[in-house]
Amino acid sequence: MEILQSIVEIVGPSGLLKGDDVSSRPNYSWGMGNCPARAIVRPATTEQVSRVMALCHQENQTVVPWGGLSGLVNGITCEPEDIVISLERMNAIEHLDAEAGTLTVQSGAILQNVQEAASEAGWLFAIDFGARGSAHIGGMIGTNAGGNSVVRYGMMREQVLGLEAVMADGTVISSMNEMLKNNAGYDIKHLFIGSEGTLGIVTRAVLRLRPAPRTVQTAFVALNTFSEVAGLLRQLGTDFEGKLSSFEVMWRNHYHYMVEETGKHQAFLPTNYPYYVLLETEGSDPEREEELFMTVLGGLMEEGHIADAVIAQSSQQAAQIWEMRDDVETLVHNISPIAVFDISLPIREMENYISGVEAELQRRFPEARMITFGHLGDGNIHLGVGPAHDKHAVETIVYEHLAKVKGSISAEHGIGLEKRDFLHCSRSPEEIAVMKSVKQALDPKHLLNPGKVFKV
Amino acid sequence: MEILQSIVEIVGPSGLLKGDDVSSRPNYSWGMGNCPARAIVRPATTEQVSRVMALCHQENQTVVPWGGLSGLVNGITCEPEDIVISLERMNAIEHLDAEAGTLTVQSGAILQNVQEAASEAGWLFAIDFGARGSAHIGGMIGTNAGGNSVVRYGMMREQVLGLEAVMADGTVISSMNEMLKNNAGYDIKHLFIGSEGTLGIVTRAVLRLRPAPRTVQTAFVALNTFSEVAGLLRQLGTDFEGKLSSFEVMWRNHYHYMVEETGKHQAFLPTNYPYYVLLETEGSDPEREEELFMTVLGGLMEEGHIADAVIAQSSQQAAQIWEMRDDVETLVHNISPIAVFDISLPIREMENYISGVEAELQRRFPEARMITFGHLGDGNIHLGVGPAHDKHAVETIVYEHLAKVKGSISAEHGIGLEKRDFLHCSRSPEEIAVMKSVKQALDPKHLLNPGKVFKV
Ligand SMILES: Cc1cc2nc3c(=O)[nH]c(=O)nc-3n(C[C@H](O)[C@H](O)[C@H](O)COP(=O)(O)OP(=O)(O)OC[C@H]3O[C@@H](n4cnc5c(N)ncnc54)[C@H](O)[C@@H]3O)c2cc1C
Ligand SMILES: Cc1cc2nc3c(=O)[nH]c(=O)nc-3n(C[C@H](O)[C@H](O)[C@H](O)COP(=O)(O)OP(=O)(O)OC[C@H]3O[C@@H](n4cnc5c(N)ncnc54)[C@H](O)[C@@H]3O)c2cc1C
Repeated sequence: MEILQSIVEIVGPSGLLKGDDVSSRPNYSWGMGNCPARAIVRPATTEQVSRVMALCHQENQTVVPWGGLSGLVNGITCEPEDIVISLERMNAIEHLDAEAGTLTVQSGAILQNVQEAASEAGWLFAIDFGARGSAHIGGMIGTNAGGNSVVRYGMMREQVLGLEAVMADGTVISSMNEMLKNNAGYDIKHLFIGSEGTLGIVTRAVLRLRPAPRTVQTAFVALNTFSEVAGLLRQLGTDFEGKLSSFEVMWRNHYHYMVEETGKHQAFLPTNYPYYVLLETEGSDPEREEELFMTVLGGLMEEGHIADAVIAQSSQQAAQIWEMRDDVETLVHNISPIAVFDISLPIREMENYISGVEAELQRRFPEARMITFGHLGDGNIHLGVGPAHDKHAVETIVYEHLAKVKGSISAEHGIGLEKRDFLHCSRSPEEIAVMKSVKQALDPKHLLNPGKVFKV
Repeated sequence: MEILQSIVEIVGPSGLLKGDDVSSRPNYSWGMGNCPARAIVRPATTEQVSRVMALCHQENQTVVPWGGLSGLVNGITCEPEDIVISLERMNAIEHLDAEAGTLTVQSGAILQNVQEAASEAGWLFAIDFGARGSAHIGGMIGTNAGGNSVVRYGMMREQVLGLEAVMADGTVISSMNEMLKNNAGYDIKHLFIGSEGTLGIVTRAVLRLRPAPRTVQTAFVALNTFSEVAGLLRQLGTDFEGKLSSFEVMWRNHYHYMVEETGKHQAFLPTNYPYYVLLETEGSDPEREEELFMTVLGGLMEEGHIADAVIAQSSQQAAQIWEMRDDVETLVHNISPIAVFDISLPIREMENYISGVEAELQRRFPEARMITFGHLGDGNIHLGVGPAHDKHAVETIVYEHLAKVKGSISAEHGIGLEKRDFLHCSRSPEEIAVMKSVKQALDPKHLLNPGKVFKV
């Protein structure tokens, strides 16, 4: 344990956790398991991260970077020989440029705190999702997080102007660019975004903020066919002039389950339509925005493109609709064991894909049900299948059908350990070979988050 | 010349140019010089590109990828020992998915053809700039091109969903993703975007289209202070609700020159204000849009934030204003020799930066003048300085001041050969070292576009 002594000298006694302080932390998604790592190192500065990594490099010590532990693909799982580098103490919100709309933070800053800092200055940080109280900016960069308004603002990648990262050998790469445009050589921040801690430890970032909307309009609508759902998405893209900020679809199996079977959520619309869409726009002038919203949706109803609709009359009502959409916990707890998927595929393939998977699941596992919903505006759907006693068999069905339509086994959660064995369903051997050569170039000793994404 | 014989066997006789057919082509930006390369290879398929590269790899033959030759940083310059691989015959527009809004093309497809194909199907391809008649999609990916509507739609990087590239050893990487979201492992397309042909030859791409606007509003306004310009940008970001698609600033020296000195352009406003902004919004409902535009600009004038304004009454009038903005040719021809810059920097630094550079230039080169304009909405400005008989001295002044405010020596044009010696002004030794290790990993023999971006 000599290396731990040297690490204490760098980070101080409160910077190193051992024994129960380690095993009381989780080892898998959803807070499961007990962390078996040698220690948890909690640096307070980039310089400490750098010195710790330089030491680990010298000693061939493997390292697992930890953010807020809200990831869903076992990206933070440790082996007993690993040490954790947790960014939890590096949570400063350093500087907000109110003129340019940029926010500089340490990577341990928590999403909700970032949202609040932006909002206080009259700006919007445009990523939001259920784990806002725990997810770190560093973890969100590591996974290229998505969420509820990607259709308008893009993923985490589009919110990161610059970043600072510590490489496997301790070198600090400071790429704290603040500009929207910078074509001076390779844009190396993209190496770190979405690489799940396998190429470097992100320590700071410059985030892009957006003008804060002054008004939000929310509706919940029902449709009779999938092609009407796809048509609606396209129509609203034009009619709402880029202000469409959410387009969340629920198949009947989801809405019916949430309302009728759990009894936990209110029936805003009858439960017998095949498709439901939660849609939202963000604008600046409440009156004009409401009028636009009513005119567009009214027109679509009159022409029969929408079967039924309810428009949220208050932010509470909007929140109730969102709660139903976001209530993944109920699914995970009531349908057990459940296999949850986060896939993306071309919208034109979606209807066939879903019915194909459903039919094969029904044949193989007649007692299982499938719940279908997702960020359809981004081609991203979630499937919940359960009870799934043979999870691997269910995954094989879902992913083999997906490979045929060139879909992605991970739209927004990443690969981690959880999906590693299926990476070949979405990536060719040549693509995986390129990933491995980049890994080899930047972390030749394979010290950073070993075994995640792919086996080296 | 054995290798050329083997190449002819792959691409056929019309696929290989030699002698005068080579030297009649340019070697530098703006069509200057004579290409000294051994030959120009013009493959017709990805497979041909792959077989040619495999051969070059075996024979240690260096290769310079050519798109539409509209690049402005000598990225296509050859040495006598190089061969060119030109994508000019791979210009097919392969498939438009009108439901999803994606367009699949070969990389030699010309920007204007891509725009037209999108437009015919009721969609928008959201990159546009003066060289639309010659620039290729592959060259635009190579340089991560920007243009006139980045403030709304982002750069080329944001329009590329997937791509196919041929690596230095001939391996074809097919990453023809069609989805907005795909977090299945490293997103390797970002390696190729903006790497100026040094990591692989892009052969095909899946482009993201946007809902086509139905109406465009254009105004030309005058302002009295730079802080009002910055304030206007921020205000319109909110008031126009994300529909602001251009925000082009001209300093008085630019507008005055174009109108009074060249006599080529109409005076839409008096020429004695210090700042002018060409601004545009894109919307879906002409009436509502016009009303919003008038209300917002009217309010700003009433409150004194805008000194003077003219609103284009027709698309012809809008085109005239744009012509004046885009008339770089006149600058390049009338002020000779001219040094042209494409820099970006934080907006808060801009006013001081410009006056600092101007003062030093005046002191060192009293006979030179500086013309200032640019895509200010993106923090991107262009400087034209001339007569610049000692170009290197002028570059040194411009870039040394820029390094102090952490600006970028290239906002959108790339580095090529032209800016290579100044890369260190915008990138740290550690960042350049990471670029080099990626280059080393993917092109260990240094065959692809040798010497561009940095020396290896
Ligand atoms: C209720 C709930 C809802 C969710 N909704 C969404 C959603 O809508 N969209 C979405 O995309 N995700 C969602 N997630 C998943 C999760 O919140 C995201 O993946 C998030 O980005 C993880 O951030 P974290 O800080 O918790 O990272 P962690 O879980 O700690 O780590 C995630 C990965 O990033 C790496 N990492 C962490 N910090 C760093 C760092 N500083 N440098 C380099 N690598 C690092 C880790 O090694 C690991 O591989 C949800 C999760 C929950 C629990
Ligand atoms: C009048 C005018 C206005 C312009 N305005 C703008 C503007 O507003 N914004 C802007 O960003 N640029 C602008 N440019 C610059 C230029 O148009 C862009 O850089 C454009 O992207 C270059 O495309 P191209 O096909 O001509 O590339 P080329 O000039 O042929 O090549 C550019 C670089 O890309 C590489 N390359 C070319 N094809 C491929 C390929 N298939 N695979 C890999 N690498 C490849 C080349 O090796 C070279 O390094 C302007 C140019 C002109 C002449």
